[in-house]
Order: sequence, then C-alpha cells, then structure tokens
Amino acid sequence: MRLPGVRRLLEGLLFHSRIMRPDDANIAGNVHGGTILKMIEEAGAIISTRHCNSQAGDKCVAALARVERTDFLSPMCIGEVGHVSAEISYTSRHSVEVQVNVMAENILTGAKRVTNRAALWYVPLSLANVGRITEVPPIQYEKPEQEEEGKKRYENQKLERFETKYRNDEYIAPVVNPEPYTVGYSQSSLIHLVGPSDCTLLGYVHGGVTMKLMDEVAGIVAARHCKTNIVTASVDAINFHRKIQKGCIITVSGRMTFTSNKSMEIEVFVDADTLVGDTQERYRAVSAFFTYVSLNKDAKPLPVPQLVLETEEEKKRFEEGKGRYLQTKAKRQMSAQSLTQQ
Amino acid sequence: MRLPGVRRLLEGLLFHSRIMRPDDANIAGNVHGGTILKMIEEAGAIISTRHCNSQAGDKCVAALARVERTDFLSPMCIGEVGHVSAEISYTSRHSVEVQVNVMAENILTGAKRVTNRAALWYVPLSLANVGRITEVPPIQYEKPEQEEEGKKRYENQKLERFETKYRNDEYIAPVVNPEPYTVGYSQSSLIHLVGPSDCTLLGYVHGGVTMKLMDEVAGIVAARHCKTNIVTASVDAINFHRKIQKGCIITVSGRMTFTSNKSMEIEVFVDADTLVGDTQERYRAVSAFFTYVSLNKDAKPLPVPQLVLETEEEKKRFEEGKGRYLQTKAKRQMSAQSLTQQ
Amino acid sequence: MRLPGVRRLLEGLLFHSRIMRPDDANIAGNVHGGTILKMIEEAGAIISTRHCNSQAGDKCVAALARVERTDFLSPMCIGEVGHVSAEISYTSRHSVEVQVNVMAENILTGAKRVTNRAALWYVPLSLANVGRITEVPPIQYEKPEQEEEGKKRYENQKLERFETKYRNDEYIAPVVNPEPYTVGYSQSSLIHLVGPSDCTLLGYVHGGVTMKLMDEVAGIVAARHCKTNIVTASVDAINFHRKIQKGCIITVSGRMTFTSNKSMEIEVFVDADTLVGDTQERYRAVSAFFTYVSLNKDAKPLPVPQLVLETEEEKKRFEEGKGRYLQTKAKRQMSAQSLTQQ
Repeated sequence: MRLPGVRRLLEGLLFHSRIMRPDDANIAGNVHGGTILKMIEEAGAIISTRHCNSQAGDKCVAALARVERTDFLSPMCIGEVGHVSAEISYTSRHSVEVQVNVMAENILTGAKRVTNRAALWYVPLSLANVGRITEVPPIQYEKPEQEEEGKKRYENQKLERFETKYRNDEYIAPVVNPEPYTVGYSQSSLIHLVGPSDCTLLGYVHGGVTMKLMDEVAGIVAARHCKTNIVTASVDAINFHRKIQKGCIITVSGRMTFTSNKSMEIEVFVDADTLVGDTQERYRAVSAFFTYVSLNKDAKPLPVPQLVLETEEEKKRFEEGKGRYLQTKAKRQMSAQSLTQQ
Repeated sequence: MRLPGVRRLLEGLLFHSRIMRPDDANIAGNVHGGTILKMIEEAGAIISTRHCNSQAGDKCVAALARVERTDFLSPMCIGEVGHVSAEISYTSRHSVEVQVNVMAENILTGAKRVTNRAALWYVPLSLANVGRITEVPPIQYEKPEQEEEGKKRYENQKLERFETKYRNDEYIAPVVNPEPYTVGYSQSSLIHLVGPSDCTLLGYVHGGVTMKLMDEVAGIVAARHCKTNIVTASVDAINFHRKIQKGCIITVSGRMTFTSNKSMEIEVFVDADTLVGDTQERYRAVSAFFTYVSLNKDAKPLPVPQLVLETEEEKKRFEEGKGRYLQTKAKRQMSAQSLTQQ
Repeated sequence: MRLPGVRRLLEGLLFHSRIMRPDDANIAGNVHGGTILKMIEEAGAIISTRHCNSQAGDKCVAALARVERTDFLSPMCIGEVGHVSAEISYTSRHSVEVQVNVMAENILTGAKRVTNRAALWYVPLSLANVGRITEVPPIQYEKPEQEEEGKKRYENQKLERFETKYRNDEYIAPVVNPEPYTVGYSQSSLIHLVGPSDCTLLGYVHGGVTMKLMDEVAGIVAARHCKTNIVTASVDAINFHRKIQKGCIITVSGRMTFTSNKSMEIEVFVDADTLVGDTQERYRAVSAFFTYVSLNKDAKPLPVPQLVLETEEEKKRFEEGKGRYLQTKAKRQMSAQSLTQQ
C-alpha cells in the first residue's frame, strides 16, 4: 500500500520519537542535555551495529569511540516530542561515522525546530572473539566528494583521539571549606554501580549512559556555581579511551575550568574501578568539556559569576578554556558569514 | 538534500525504534507484552495528539479510549531492536483510530519479523477547558471504501464500549490458604502511586502505563498457576472507562478465568482511589482479558494445568472464557482459509 | 471459602506485589536492600496518607519521620515476586505507626519466605497550609493492650529521635592516597539532583528514595572494602530530621565504622543543598548505620577483612560500632532463647 521505494530508502535511516517526560528534565522543565545525548547514542548504536552485521562473517556490536563537538541549539521542554534520525555518513575499514539530527516538535502547536546535530564514531567489536575488532562493510556514496570529505573527518578525529590520550593523568582533588565561586566550591562527583540495563550485549556500558552521567555532574557543578536554572549549551568532542565493564563502579567528577560573561566550561572525568574480577584497577575511561549557560524565566541567558582562581594550575586551565571559547566563537562567526555570503 | 517527497510522505507516519534491555524482559529474556503495549500507546498518543492539533482551535491532548484486540505473534528478545510505526486510519468527529505495527529486528543477523499489529482509539481532551472534548480534523482517504470500513469499525467499537460498562461491579476478594490450581491460588494484585512521569500534560495517566501494569499482574497470575516461562499471547479489547489522575493510587488485580490445553485467560481490573482531592472515591477505570501461553526452552508451547473451579461464579466465568476462546479460534481458522483461497 | 468481613478487614491493610528485575539487583542477582526499603516506604506512605485523609478536614500527605531498625532476613533474587503488606498499628495525635511485612515468592517453585519486617512512623503534612501538621484520626484496637504497647513504642521513638539530633555535626572528610582497608580507602559519596519523580505531591523527596540512595552508597563502601558480592543485612533506626525539597542537590556519603568477623557497619549521611531559592543552605537531613555481609557463590557468609584504624576518632567510632554489634547480638540470642522456652 505504501509508495514504492520507501522501504529501500528507509533501510539506511533510523527514526526514533518519544515524548519528553518530567524525569527527562530539570525543575524548570528543560530537558537535560544528557537525556538527548543518550537518545542520540542509542540511535547511533542501532544503525552502526545493524550496518556492521549486514555482511556474512563475525557477528559484532558497535561500541562508541568518539562523539564530535555537539551544540545544543535550543532547549527541549517537557511534553514536546523529540525526534532523532540517524544515517551512516562514512565508513573506514574498522570504524563507522553516523550523523544524527534531533528535532523538537510541539505537538500542540505543530512548531518544529532543530535542537541538535551530532557526529559519532563507532568501532565494531566481535561477539565471539573478545577484544577483536571486525571489518566494516563499505557504504555507497552518492557523490565521490562525500567519500573524500568523510576521509578527512576520519583522519582528523584519529589525530585528535591520539592527542587527548595524554591529558589523562589528572585527578580532581577534594577541597576542604572552599570559598564561593572558586573551583573547589562547585566541583562535584558521583559514583554509579554499573547494572545490567546500562550495558550492551557484550557487557560494556552504553556510551549514552556514560554521557548522561557526565552531563548530570556537569549540570550540578554549573548549578552550584551560579545557583540558577542552567542548561547544556555544547559538548566538546568526547573520546572513549577505554571500555567499562558490567559490575564496575564509575566515578564521574566535574570541575569548572573557565567562565565567560554568559557561559561556563566544565571539565568532566570518568574513572572506572574494576571491583570484582581478577585484575583490580582504576583507570580513566572518558573525559570531556561541557559548556553551560544560565537562563532566566524567559529563557534568556543570564550573566555568570566569574570563576575565582586560586592556584597556578587553575589559571593555566582557565587560559586553555579561554582559548577553546575564542576558537569556537571565531568558527561560529565564520560560518555565519559564509551563510550570509551565499 | 534528501529525496523530494519523502518529507511529505512521512508527515502522517511515526517511527520509533529502541533496543530491548534486560529490564524490559523476564528472566528467560522474552520482552514483556506490557513493554510493547506501552511503546504502541506512546506512538499512538503522539500521532493522534499531533493530528488533533493540526488545525486552528482549542489545543488538546489525545487520551486513549480503547485498544482493539491485539495478538502477540512472536516474542521479542533482549538485544533486539523494536520498531514501532503508527498511522491514522480513521477519524470521526470526536475520535481518532490509529493503526500501529511492531517489528522486531535482530541487528546481528538482520532478520526482521512482525510481532504485533494494534488498533487504538483516541479522544482529544481540551487543555484549556477541563472535561471538554474537542473536534477532530478529518483525514483524506485514498479510496472511498477506506472511509466506509473505518466507519464500520467505529460503530462496532462504540457498541462494545457501551456493553462493557456493565461488567464493572466485581471485585477480587482475597482467599486464605487456597488449594493449588484454584482461582484463589494464583490471583494477585499490585498497587501503584501515580507519579508525574506516569502522566500526560493534562495530569492523567498515560494509557500505556496502565496497560504495562495490567500485563505485569496478568503475568504474575499466569506464572503462579503454571510455574514456567510464560509470555503474553493476546490481549482482548481494552476499554478505558474513566481517567486516572496524578496522585491517585491504582490497584491492579488479576484472576484466572479460563484455561485451554495450551493457554490461560486472565481477567484484570484497574481501580483508582482518589486519595487527596475534594471527592474521595474508588472507581473501576479499566478492565480486560489477557491470554498467556507457557513456553519451554525452545520457545515451544507447553501444556497448561487445568484451572480448578470451586464456585458457581467461577464456573460461569470459565464458560464465558471458553466462549471467547472458541470464537477467536474460529475467526483465526476463517482468516487462514481466506488466505489459502486467495 | 471467603471469610466474612474480609472487605472491612482489608480497609486497613495494603498489599503490593511486583517482579524483581535486573535493575533492582546487583550483578550476582541479589536485590538491593535499597530497592526493598523503597517498596516498604511506598506501601507505608500510601496506607498512612489514606488513613489521615479518612475524615473530613484538611487534606494531607504523610511524610516519613522514622524507620525502626530493620533486618534483611534473606536476600531476594531477580525473577522472584516481592510481596509487601502494610497495616496501621498505632496512632498518636500527630503520627501514625505502620507495620510492614515483605515476603519473597519464587513463582516457579511456589516457595515463599519472609525477607523483612519493618515499622515506620509518618507525620501528616497539610496540602493547603504549608508546614502545618494535621490531626490523625484514631484507629480502633482489638485489644486494649495493643494501644498501651503502641504508646510505649511511640514514647521510645520520640526519645531516640530527640537524642540523635545531636550526632549530626560530623562530616566525612576526603582522604588522599589512602591505604587498603583503611576508612579512607572505601569511603564514598554520591550526589543526586532531586527531580520531580523523586517527590510527593507536596514537592518533598519520598523517604524511600532517600533510603535507596543511602543503601547504594553503603553498598559501594562495603564492596570497595571487601571486593566481593555483598548484601544488606540490617539497617539501624533511620530518623528523618529535615525534609528535602524538589530541586535540591543531595550528597549521600558513607564510611565504614566497624567490622566483625563476618559483617561491616557503614555510617551514612544525607546532606541537602538548597541551590535555587531564597535561602541557600546546606543541612544534614538524615543519618543511619547500615550493616553488610559478604557472600560466596552459595550465598554463605565470607570472612571480612578487618578495618585498619588510623586516627583516634576512627578508634572511638569503631568501639561504638562494636557496642551496637554486641547489643544486637545479645538481643538476638535472648529472643531465640525465649522462642525455645515457649
């Protein structure tokens, strides 16, 4: 009964829609960035696992390796319907790039708006041979330049993932009786015992579960600093350095690194403890920078109290954060200009 | 950038996909019928609320009024992806019929199969004027007979909903020291305090939340009776007689009414207590019959112990259940024949 | 077969059953003590709210004030059905005592066993007048001595609640690079942003939600200490000193205070930060002692590594813990003797 071709057309696509509930949001009714990151990752995991198993050979599960920088263009609200669509945009021999779009629909007014665009990289892990990475079937590109551009993105992310491996020996040390607006004042950490429902078929934590916890900690750091209604504005590229297994305890810690007039940058670390098992160790699994803004009742950005710096390291991290902030701002102005010139 | 026409085509459709997790399933790994009913209802609520607000006028939220008889053609498993697609198939002045299809996809093997088809009826409730039912914009039918057939379904369900209103004065009384395989031996009930996440924007419980709890109780009754791995085989038409408000306590009770060689029929009642509020009362909100089968390790149906009847009422209900069983069987044979003859 | 008067009899009773799911349990399949505490409290809240609204007057919501010492007689497992029954056993002018029994049923074998008995105290808070405590309608006692005994329990708990108010100025200070088996080595804390689904109609956190988080932290402390499968054995009386409001951040911290050969005692603090609001403050809301045991694969208790004490305060707390341990042991032996002599 359907139009011919639609089934074929939909093969490489994935749609996912659901109503946003009170549990997905803060008390001002804004959906947590972490909820959206989790929805994005679930769509990415489904479409890339499906693709990697589309040829004969070892069965596998796609594991999240990296999420490119993501902007939250507009907060979603309770009662709105979130639509996620995902599509594979590039494949290398051992990795898959997925593009995901998120749209918010007010089903009462019919208004729709794009809230997120994300690019995720997955690596297929064999179900039969623990630790083995399987081969990814190539996709067909409509135009040859799509493959070239994908290859550039692939090389870029490979380089960046390699670089971030070196930033991983830092820990967030506890501070006793911190002064307001200092780094120690708002820094926070949570622990979570990894349960069966957090995990894939291989027994590793879903990337989306980790990102949701990261956003939760970052949000608490931001709220402690400025004590207002805060929302996720963007997330820097997130690299998943090591997998986290069922039964681990994960510690997610966040500290503020930089404040501009109207935004806060929070660094988040995820550390895993392999409690029960042959080898007990603690290791850094993920790290990323989250940017938050503070909103008034009409959802307009509010000024943010400036971060009070106490140590040389804090000052260094602040300058680095400022660098990232200015770079992003410059990129945004460039892309705005290029849009105007078209 | 996508193919032209696809966006238009997708307007009246809704897709929803998600991975089945351990919490969605029983210990044998079979996804609970209630999880699937909840996914179906969410898709129905989104598409019908969207449609009812597609014209200027009072904003409204679609409330579930009835679910037609639903068969669970094949159990879904943990790790599979469930795909739900929904489409509006008929509109009367004050109600919407939605057709929903559910498919299970094994993303490792690529195998797909239809697991459910359901038809749901929604009524639009005004957001501004409590208790007011708004008007439904008419849909365009591709062929005139589609409208005629829809009208027949509409008249049928209207009649049936009217009839079931009279069955609602019964309660399930507790039994002390029941004998095995009697009705009292397996009867069960649960209570649930209605929280914010169970509710729509209007503060009424989502139909899908209620159905999930009903399936949970029916499953406990079935498991107590036959002490094996049991799965939902079908659900009779469910009529939502009255709405349930936030803050209510709901009591969901189930008792076995009939057993055939390989199936069990369980009657489930949902009663609401308005604890806090101006008028405190307890009322029957929903009732329905669930059919369960017992499976061995290879997912083949097992014989079911016969229900031991003790009272005249139990015998009467057993005969009524037998009637429903034979009617369904006859219908199935007829539709199988008509398929063969084509 | 139906007892006369059952409906009347059930008015003051409440039953609740649900299947234990993977998310309710640890990776060894044992249901978390916190899950059971949450079920117990939900039943208590429902029955006491219902009772306090049974007469004309101000509508109210019952808030948890205290849970008496609770033993976990036997761990529950995934797939079992947990049954909670609750009954009001005493009323004073402004408080309600609820007795709760928890039973585990293996629905495959039909085996049932008692897993918990608990006594909870609730106070009715007015819905209309914030901060007002309403009056509790008196219950009818079958025998006069029931009222007298209840009054004794009421006076006892009142005294104990008053006393524990003074223990509340301690905090768990962070330790850098702790040695294995020291207090600092296993101490843990988590943060949680209070969301809408954690709260009652009045916007205060459900006591059960708080207890679940407390058990989660205590469990992580125990697991970090002995690195085996651990389960909750008992919880000391828990007093809810102050309410926690929606939008607060709660910090739940735990530290080990005492180890016997086969058990660990963990002290847990709950602190609330009122982030957004007129008055920003941090206060101690709840504190309690949890006892954990370590189990091998056959669910037999394992020896526990002895706690290494480093400071005078730790030694003092260890001695106090030893006192509580010996007292409980003595009580248990006495009640076992009195049972034998009967």
